[in-house]
Amino acid sequence: MASNSFGHIFKFTSFGESHGKAIGCIVDGVPPMVSISEKDIQILLDRRKPGQSKFVTQRKENDKVEILSGVFEGKTTGHPIALNIKNEDQRTKDYSDISDKFRPGHADITYQEKYGIRDYRGGGRSSARETAVRVAAGAIALKVLNHKLKKPIVVRASVIQMGPNKINRENFSWNEVNKNPFFCGDHTAAKEWEIWLDKLRKEGNSTGAIIEIVAKNVPKGLGSPIYKKLDSQIAEALMSINAVKGVEIGSGFDLASLTGFDANDEIFPDNNGGYYFGTNHSGGILGGISTGQPIVARFIVKPTSSILSEKNSINSKIESVKIRTKGRHDPCVGIRAVPVAESMIAITILDQLLQHEGQIGKLSN
Amino acid sequence: MASNSFGHIFKFTSFGESHGKAIGCIVDGVPPMVSISEKDIQILLDRRKPGQSKFVTQRKENDKVEILSGVFEGKTTGHPIALNIKNEDQRTKDYSDISDKFRPGHADITYQEKYGIRDYRGGGRSSARETAVRVAAGAIALKVLNHKLKKPIVVRASVIQMGPNKINRENFSWNEVNKNPFFCGDHTAAKEWEIWLDKLRKEGNSTGAIIEIVAKNVPKGLGSPIYKKLDSQIAEALMSINAVKGVEIGSGFDLASLTGFDANDEIFPDNNGGYYFGTNHSGGILGGISTGQPIVARFIVKPTSSILSEKNSINSKIESVKIRTKGRHDPCVGIRAVPVAESMIAITILDQLLQHEGQIGKLSN
Amino acid sequence: MASNSFGHIFKFTSFGESHGKAIGCIVDGVPPMVSISEKDIQILLDRRKPGQSKFVTQRKENDKVEILSGVFEGKTTGHPIALNIKNEDQRTKDYSDISDKFRPGHADITYQEKYGIRDYRGGGRSSARETAVRVAAGAIALKVLNHKLKKPIVVRASVIQMGPNKINRENFSWNEVNKNPFFCGDHTAAKEWEIWLDKLRKEGNSTGAIIEIVAKNVPKGLGSPIYKKLDSQIAEALMSINAVKGVEIGSGFDLASLTGFDANDEIFPDNNGGYYFGTNHSGGILGGISTGQPIVARFIVKPTSSILSEKNSINSKIESVKIRTKGRHDPCVGIRAVPVAESMIAITILDQLLQHEGQIGKLSN
Amino acid sequence: MASNSFGHIFKFTSFGESHGKAIGCIVDGVPPMVSISEKDIQILLDRRKPGQSKFVTQRKENDKVEILSGVFEGKTTGHPIALNIKNEDQRTKDYSDISDKFRPGHADITYQEKYGIRDYRGGGRSSARETAVRVAAGAIALKVLNHKLKKPIVVRASVIQMGPNKINRENFSWNEVNKNPFFCGDHTAAKEWEIWLDKLRKEGNSTGAIIEIVAKNVPKGLGSPIYKKLDSQIAEALMSINAVKGVEIGSGFDLASLTGFDANDEIFPDNNGGYYFGTNHSGGILGGISTGQPIVARFIVKPTSSILSEKNSINSKIESVKIRTKGRHDPCVGIRAVPVAESMIAITILDQLLQHEGQIGKLSN
Repeated sequence: MASNSFGHIFKFTSFGESHGKAIGCIVDGVPPMVSISEKDIQILLDRRKPGQSKFVTQRKENDKVEILSGVFEGKTTGHPIALNIKNEDQRTKDYSDISDKFRPGHADITYQEKYGIRDYRGGGRSSARETAVRVAAGAIALKVLNHKLKKPIVVRASVIQMGPNKINRENFSWNEVNKNPFFCGDHTAAKEWEIWLDKLRKEGNSTGAIIEIVAKNVPKGLGSPIYKKLDSQIAEALMSINAVKGVEIGSGFDLASLTGFDANDEIFPDNNGGYYFGTNHSGGILGGISTGQPIVARFIVKPTSSILSEKNSINSKIESVKIRTKGRHDPCVGIRAVPVAESMIAITILDQLLQHEGQIGKLSN
Repeated sequence: MASNSFGHIFKFTSFGESHGKAIGCIVDGVPPMVSISEKDIQILLDRRKPGQSKFVTQRKENDKVEILSGVFEGKTTGHPIALNIKNEDQRTKDYSDISDKFRPGHADITYQEKYGIRDYRGGGRSSARETAVRVAAGAIALKVLNHKLKKPIVVRASVIQMGPNKINRENFSWNEVNKNPFFCGDHTAAKEWEIWLDKLRKEGNSTGAIIEIVAKNVPKGLGSPIYKKLDSQIAEALMSINAVKGVEIGSGFDLASLTGFDANDEIFPDNNGGYYFGTNHSGGILGGISTGQPIVARFIVKPTSSILSEKNSINSKIESVKIRTKGRHDPCVGIRAVPVAESMIAITILDQLLQHEGQIGKLSN
Repeated sequence: MASNSFGHIFKFTSFGESHGKAIGCIVDGVPPMVSISEKDIQILLDRRKPGQSKFVTQRKENDKVEILSGVFEGKTTGHPIALNIKNEDQRTKDYSDISDKFRPGHADITYQEKYGIRDYRGGGRSSARETAVRVAAGAIALKVLNHKLKKPIVVRASVIQMGPNKINRENFSWNEVNKNPFFCGDHTAAKEWEIWLDKLRKEGNSTGAIIEIVAKNVPKGLGSPIYKKLDSQIAEALMSINAVKGVEIGSGFDLASLTGFDANDEIFPDNNGGYYFGTNHSGGILGGISTGQPIVARFIVKPTSSILSEKNSINSKIESVKIRTKGRHDPCVGIRAVPVAESMIAITILDQLLQHEGQIGKLSN
Repeated sequence: MASNSFGHIFKFTSFGESHGKAIGCIVDGVPPMVSISEKDIQILLDRRKPGQSKFVTQRKENDKVEILSGVFEGKTTGHPIALNIKNEDQRTKDYSDISDKFRPGHADITYQEKYGIRDYRGGGRSSARETAVRVAAGAIALKVLNHKLKKPIVVRASVIQMGPNKINRENFSWNEVNKNPFFCGDHTAAKEWEIWLDKLRKEGNSTGAIIEIVAKNVPKGLGSPIYKKLDSQIAEALMSINAVKGVEIGSGFDLASLTGFDANDEIFPDNNGGYYFGTNHSGGILGGISTGQPIVARFIVKPTSSILSEKNSINSKIESVKIRTKGRHDPCVGIRAVPVAESMIAITILDQLLQHEGQIGKLSN
């Protein structure tokens, strides 16, 4: 149960609504003696922070994180780290006229059906604002991973398709990713998306996106067959992010068209007494356990449901209404999913690492 | 932890290797007073049973299930139901020549890296033979669902793509699904696949497949935000099945190319005081909670890794070897994933139903 | 895992150190539509609050609780309730001279051994200050219980022995319990304890105590055999409270001296078509499941380890030192365990109620 | 949830009724590469086996355990170990005349209330027969502990009081424990108990008992504050055993009468750069974490509820009935609780060890 918790040994529990007093989490199972500061977390939070370009929500939140516990003289104590982020820029009045209506594509109607009550202000608990908490917890996970492992774990995501527009893989560079407002690794594509998305935004519309995420230096041996396979845990992690409707690992859905002969990643001895794989169709995971190759996953974020264009819906009396969602919204919510996904993957990797060390023993990369 | 368990309130824990004495599971959290017999389970097991056509493994297993506990005078008692399926047709010698080699595409090398030991006979614990247990547990889940709910929960899956060959949606009928060896809903496609797959099989090769799964009559309100969203739990469930490398919900990856205007499922009042959605891009799940529409998911099963064609690999001394996987293998392991996926979805739905009733109260459809 | 969480469906996760910025918790799994306010929680917190008599710590904490999430327009939403209590009166300097020493009877040395680091200020995470959080979570549990059940659940505890001094059962009245600084139900005993304990306090010493806790109107059928029996869950709950070293249910350790003939609680029909038990040696629990009789448990709280009298110990260099624990300490920490235990029992009962309703169905009293 | 499971990383899930086909369990989270055989388990099972003296049930069960999975070529593989014990000597007819009556002191009435159904044959799931499974799982835990740790973990229990008859501590020797039918460490007491208990047995009555359990060589640092303190986990473990109604750690309830000055275990440097405690009132646990001293716990097992003497009760129509429990019963069920408790403690220690190694790192003794 505990549906607001994620992880098993390294486990965080989150709270907070879009327009409540604060959002935050408690991170439990943190190994002791790891250096951590509010600044370490803030750096990652700032990547996700709203209001940084016209392509993301204009809500002004500093997302300033405060550590309330679990860190003593700059080091983790092994006890729970509570993180708190105050909500500052709640324009609740934007929502007063939809308090009684169900926005299509949103959780309004399902929350109402499930709970019989909902905090309608900005989506309440269902708001993507919650994802800031994931980024904060992920920052701790990264610090712990790099404290424990010799080689740094590098988890990087990038938007590879926005609307129907795909990047050109030949242009891709991780160095480009932080140089444009889209976390896009293809400089040319990013330029084109800027014009395309601005037009869509002005039309009061929104778009979906596909993000690719790659984790490097992941130790061999992570993952817990049978029901907590690494691919399964990654799928759960990414699919728990708001608006995500699909996840694939390695060659993913393209594997349907391949034969076994082409899909099997061959193994070869290398020159250092180790081995390598000729290809990585498996996305770095075989039988639910990491191979040591890069972990590769992709996920789809549906178009932002909050749009200015009018759609049909109903109100709480089940009467037909027209609805346009005002407020300050991302025309492509997929963009800000990039740092969120990186954090969820870092947490998943750390949690699996600790699980491995609990059952089996020390693991290194 | 407990990586061999699945579910939270309705929870099963599985055991067993491909060539061990038996496979089975303990199902805990079963509501009492539900009629259940070995026959109820056997019917579903028989759908997954090997040896039923030339397109699946020729291993002869009766997969006869035995209930060891938790049922008294034909009814569940609320106590754990232990299920046991003896392994009968272990041809372990098929594996003797690969005991020291790592089959590409298989879990051989990752199991060895993780555990330092592996039961190499038929893949040991990583064998798809384990999925029989899921089907058995799913049979209990279905009985419980239909005991609790007014309308029967109908969970049906079908292969919609085999290799590069897609079905024609216009030909699709659920009635066709059990009439061909592929669980394919398109009569014409099934005919073509038969020839195509037989050729591939004779070449010592294998193919991937995409399966679509639809659950009808699912009550509104299932799913546990934030981290146990229904889509997230379905993704975890399906991605835990052997060889699955991708999962999508509703319009899935196609949502990337849609605008918010097109992707938002509009809501309309119906004539009975209720409401309906104009479309189902969301696959019956909004904000991680079921809408009452059919739940729709798709997943990709990679080509069977065990092929007769020769591939490069290494042995335990990390020497280069050539490897061909003899034994009795499915040319398309995606086919038998159909009843397995149905069971995993039934279990996921029941578990979420019980979770809802625990936290919130009675739910009906 | 998640060792800072308690409960399964109704689950709270706590954080905070004695001299950190704040303590608090996130309560997950709260049923929706339950009226709850900060005042509801504050009332119970005030019972546990330090500084209310000379027999408890003189630390001045208002223990003012703030609800940060999960309540909308006065009602629970089904989403996590975050509770925050600021630390106000941290006199950290009291601890500077023991930062390097291990106080006997305290967790200092074991925390250091386990984590390699500890927040020595006031015991850090091991401080009984953490128990305020339990009381706050328990206040929510009580509100939920009384929202769900017809008859109010009444959970009451009282100190029945302080040092060697036992109450006289014939004098006992629940009405007395809140009229003296000891939560003692025997007016005469309380008078005597006042003199006795004051003397001990002035000598720089401390005492243990035994508390009895009784829960009335608990529905029949609570408890989850085999490993989550209601007695087992109560034992876990009470034994997790600081300084508790023993728990017994019903006639407890006295049952050793009884024969089966005397210990078996006979059952008789009553005049309303129901039944009753002649005795309650079982403390309201048979086979781990509640009988409908009052749940009766007792637990021992060891003497406060922080005493002004000098004891032998070691410092971090493992050198012999003499140690006296200054600071503001309860001469009998068992007193303030009373509201803490009540809360833990309320949480345990609610959690079991929700578990029952999840697996089996509606339960009433 | 999962109330038939015990443990977190090392976790076993049990099944089976007294008169069903079999009892058994699945042990998950077992570290790989540990030598284990059916014989290792059988040795411990045989200590608990019924029918070994006139002071325990005369039911003839060989309790022959079979390993179905998770062990390959004599070593654990890291995958679940399924254990199966067939029921052989079910004299179900002994129970036919009480199928409709509720035996006082038993779970009959509470199972019926909770589940609306019960397997009345021999108590069904509530039978102490289930404890054989705990012993089997504990045998695996011990093998793993002694594989992982340098010094062997020694967990030994002994009956220290039977009825009103206490042992003389001065006579106590662990060497005596296995030399009499009572697991009693006091030779003289055992002789006296033999006469005393035989008389009670012939009268158709039964008695309670207190058992002391001591674990030696437990590493420092075990236990998970706040809610999974080692004392709390031990209390949960022991109180989950059938008929246990009280648990205490170290000096336990006697601590009520001690002052802090007397109860605080002083710490002294030893001559090897280490330290020792002057006393062990804490039972080897401070702040919920092991100190390295022997872990000491005691628990009370109530008198066997199945007695031949007549008692009042009701039947399923809530009519008054007289009831005598025929069948083959232990006059003191506390005796056979000895190996069961040892197993539960071994499991608890191992589970905490693995949890520690998961969060924090390697631990040794």
